[in-house]
Amino acid sequence: MASKAQNRIVIAREPGGPDVLDLVERPMPVPGPGEVLIRNVACGVNRPDQIERLGFYPAPPGAPEGLGLEVSGHIAALGPGVDGLAEGDDVIALVAGGGYSEHVIAPAGSVLPAPEGVDLADAAGLPETVFTVWANVFETGALSPDETLLIHGGTSGIGTTAIQMAKAHGARVIATAGTPQKVALCETLGADIAINYRDTDFEAAVKEAGGADVVLDMVGGDYVQKNINCANAGARLVSIAFLKGSRVEVDLMRVMLKRIVLTGSTLRARPDDEKARLAREVLTTVWPWIAAGKLHPVIDSRFALADARSAHARLDGGQHAGKILLAC
Amino acid sequence: MASKAQNRIVIAREPGGPDVLDLVERPMPVPGPGEVLIRNVACGVNRPDQIERLGFYPAPPGAPEGLGLEVSGHIAALGPGVDGLAEGDDVIALVAGGGYSEHVIAPAGSVLPAPEGVDLADAAGLPETVFTVWANVFETGALSPDETLLIHGGTSGIGTTAIQMAKAHGARVIATAGTPQKVALCETLGADIAINYRDTDFEAAVKEAGGADVVLDMVGGDYVQKNINCANAGARLVSIAFLKGSRVEVDLMRVMLKRIVLTGSTLRARPDDEKARLAREVLTTVWPWIAAGKLHPVIDSRFALADARSAHARLDGGQHAGKILLAC
Repeated sequence: MASKAQNRIVIAREPGGPDVLDLVERPMPVPGPGEVLIRNVACGVNRPDQIERLGFYPAPPGAPEGLGLEVSGHIAALGPGVDGLAEGDDVIALVAGGGYSEHVIAPAGSVLPAPEGVDLADAAGLPETVFTVWANVFETGALSPDETLLIHGGTSGIGTTAIQMAKAHGARVIATAGTPQKVALCETLGADIAINYRDTDFEAAVKEAGGADVVLDMVGGDYVQKNINCANAGARLVSIAFLKGSRVEVDLMRVMLKRIVLTGSTLRARPDDEKARLAREVLTTVWPWIAAGKLHPVIDSRFALADARSAHARLDGGQHAGKILLAC
Repeated sequence: MASKAQNRIVIAREPGGPDVLDLVERPMPVPGPGEVLIRNVACGVNRPDQIERLGFYPAPPGAPEGLGLEVSGHIAALGPGVDGLAEGDDVIALVAGGGYSEHVIAPAGSVLPAPEGVDLADAAGLPETVFTVWANVFETGALSPDETLLIHGGTSGIGTTAIQMAKAHGARVIATAGTPQKVALCETLGADIAINYRDTDFEAAVKEAGGADVVLDMVGGDYVQKNINCANAGARLVSIAFLKGSRVEVDLMRVMLKRIVLTGSTLRARPDDEKARLAREVLTTVWPWIAAGKLHPVIDSRFALADARSAHARLDGGQHAGKILLAC
């Protein structure tokens, strides 16, 4: 008599460092209406996973157990009422949790066909960054091709994706990074200007370069006022994380006088139908950029699913450039 | 032999209190291409005039000399290339300066026919507030009829106009004010909820009432974080002045998690073609509200042009409710 099928997932046993991550067995999940079960090939390791591991980013209600927000793999089973997908399809997906696993449940609307031109094992590095950049730079930020985008953390997963997507769109890109090697990577990816923030005041450099129309900021802290200072009239400043803190002192007079928009968003908290809408936009606009060779995931390193602790140690260290992936 | 025609205008002799205002004679201005000369009937006294008098709000380049941003009156002369206006027309206008005067130059695009249903002497209280509310609440704030607008300073010129315009649009309105009389005025003007901020914490009251989708704020200071706290997901917070200061400490984490937009603007700094575009929108949407009795200027007090000092003393005192006007 066969034992019931099992799934292996990575959970954070308790809040703490990388060693709180454990690979555990759970019953194989069954897709409900409008859901699919994916046999994962790889999953991406992201900053929100680190914050969740530390206990500060609770999963939204109903999310699959465990860490992980993006996967690539094959459709293993379809729930009732799913159209346009079939068992065996190569796909990528944004998931609300549980991506560090052999199998994960995804809402069908957050699943996209794997893009042409990228190995399926690399494609796990796409969903979180592509959806985030699309939602924040292209929709909220409304970047137009004759404008300048300033990206902090140019060699993060988000940064490497944002540089390439903005260039594919035709915009001018200024990126900041913290080492000569990272600055060089930004330039290789297409940044028109890359600034080493350790030896150059980015505010002055961006002003001298004509100012920024859209800023994608994951730093916060004192960067917020500097972003305001070097932003052009009508600029959109979009915060997606706060590595230097979210409690900031700002002078809103400049925001008013320059008619600047200060905003931000997270991807995970958006409802499924909103993610499905984003997925359709990404399929139409971004997938052709990948097929045309204008956008590829920049992979920093790969670890086995059972070695998620090492992946998180690498993330914590901050030396990575591009995406950290787990092979599932 | 007739002496050359003279114009009388009010200027601020130097930065200071109301007594720096002087009525002085100047040569009659001549409208240039695309401009008109208006024989003023009345002009509005606004908060930016006070700030300019104090020396903190320099006029934009090319603005007419003297204080004053809005007038009502008759067209006295047309410059070359002005269509659709004729000498003798009753009009209201937004001007870049110099409105406290017998005659003022206005760009033709910022001139509108005087609305039906309002005395010309009262109509001088309309342009600055109507254009400001339209630009900030309806365009930037994108208030929809099924949303809630929170207005601070409900009995200011801007506040009384914003309450009426938002109600004419069908939206729900919460207003704050500082005395029982002012609270009653907000309610008379149509506010669904009026809060006396001196005895009630507006943040808690707005939360209890279901939160705000758009906030029109002229206070700044600690109001900014409170606005963020009682704002709904996706809310737009628009700053148009900072009576309690513009250097504020805010927690942008909540801005990001609720996808709030923090922005602001000033009317005076906008280019003429932008003001002309606003004028066309106002003519189409807001003038019918006036004709239908849904919007009227709330007049606090009237002073002679020669008594502009008393008008500013009233503005400085902060006891006024609605608009202060000068008869020209």
